Amino acid sequence: MAKRAVILLAPGYEELEAVAVVDILRRAGIDALLAGLDEGPVPSARDVKIVPDTTLDRIKDEAFDLIVLPGGLDGTERLAGTPAVVDMLKRQLEEGRYIGAICAAPTVLDRHGLSKGCTITCHPICQEAVKESNLSQERVSQDGLIITSQGPGTALEFALKLVEVLEGRGKMEEVNKGVLAKI
Amino acid sequence: MAKRAVILLAPGYEELEAVAVVDILRRAGIDALLAGLDEGPVPSARDVKIVPDTTLDRIKDEAFDLIVLPGGLDGTERLAGTPAVVDMLKRQLEEGRYIGAICAAPTVLDRHGLSKGCTITCHPICQEAVKESNLSQERVSQDGLIITSQGPGTALEFALKLVEVLEGRGKMEEVNKGVLAKI
Repeated sequence: MAKRAVILLAPGYEELEAVAVVDILRRAGIDALLAGLDEGPVPSARDVKIVPDTTLDRIKDEAFDLIVLPGGLDGTERLAGTPAVVDMLKRQLEEGRYIGAICAAPTVLDRHGLSKGCTITCHPICQEAVKESNLSQERVSQDGLIITSQGPGTALEFALKLVEVLEGRGKMEEVNKGVLAKI
Repeated sequence: MAKRAVILLAPGYEELEAVAVVDILRRAGIDALLAGLDEGPVPSARDVKIVPDTTLDRIKDEAFDLIVLPGGLDGTERLAGTPAVVDMLKRQLEEGRYIGAICAAPTVLDRHGLSKGCTITCHPICQEAVKESNLSQERVSQDGLIITSQGPGTALEFALKLVEVLEGRGKMEEVNKGVLAKI
């Protein structure tokens, strides 16, 4: 059976980060869903309007191998302030499954104590907001179930890392033959 | 006045290539429009549904500083087979303005004689389709008004090159401070 992933889209998400992840996960044969926090097209940080595959309400009780939080300052604030998102993330870790977060989104984990004592990376402009986690300066970082990354320019490396975590390095390298990322 | 760019979205476009370009151009203050070949949300190669800002029909007689063709095999076929697209591209070069094409899309230019004798790059799997242009193995290539690139993994370098061409290297470097691409 294919692995399952969900990418949560709150208004103001960083569009390149969200789309790089869904593109690369689907290339790897992972069943990846874009789930909007609201019904209808969700506008990104720079007003790219994506019609999500489903909504948070419909999938919030389902099990996913991976939950991904794209960055974008407004999107991140909305994710952090949505109890159903925080509940999903807590359950995800309790049940031993993966979370990916990029750019500003790793601060959602820090703020809710989900990455306490873990090593995470995030966008340089958000580093001061990290209080309870160990800050890494790497472009992509993994600590156990938590994979984090820095920004739009690292989104492809992040997405390929998520494939490696779920499907192994061989599958990641196979996907990258068509993608042509420098890895 | 802000420079103007249009990214043409045909069903089956490569989503990361299209979104990287619109994200980066907008970060640079360029007035970038996503124009669908049809009305309504346009599905990408891996079924990301984007609601474009406008349609080809509405903007086909307007002047843009830059026209961008994303890749994706199906999207590229549709672009190449749409007379209004080919007419826009011909006029663009006649009037001395820029065209960007990535992945499979540079073959649209070659097929219609628009890059005859020019140096272009494209995705390795499309290189055999290039007949009348000089093939480069670079990740991003510029020859006069034509800027081309290889695939999803080079989309960010391509988008930053487009900013450099329209707004100069200083603006490109300023944008990349937030983007964090390796350049």
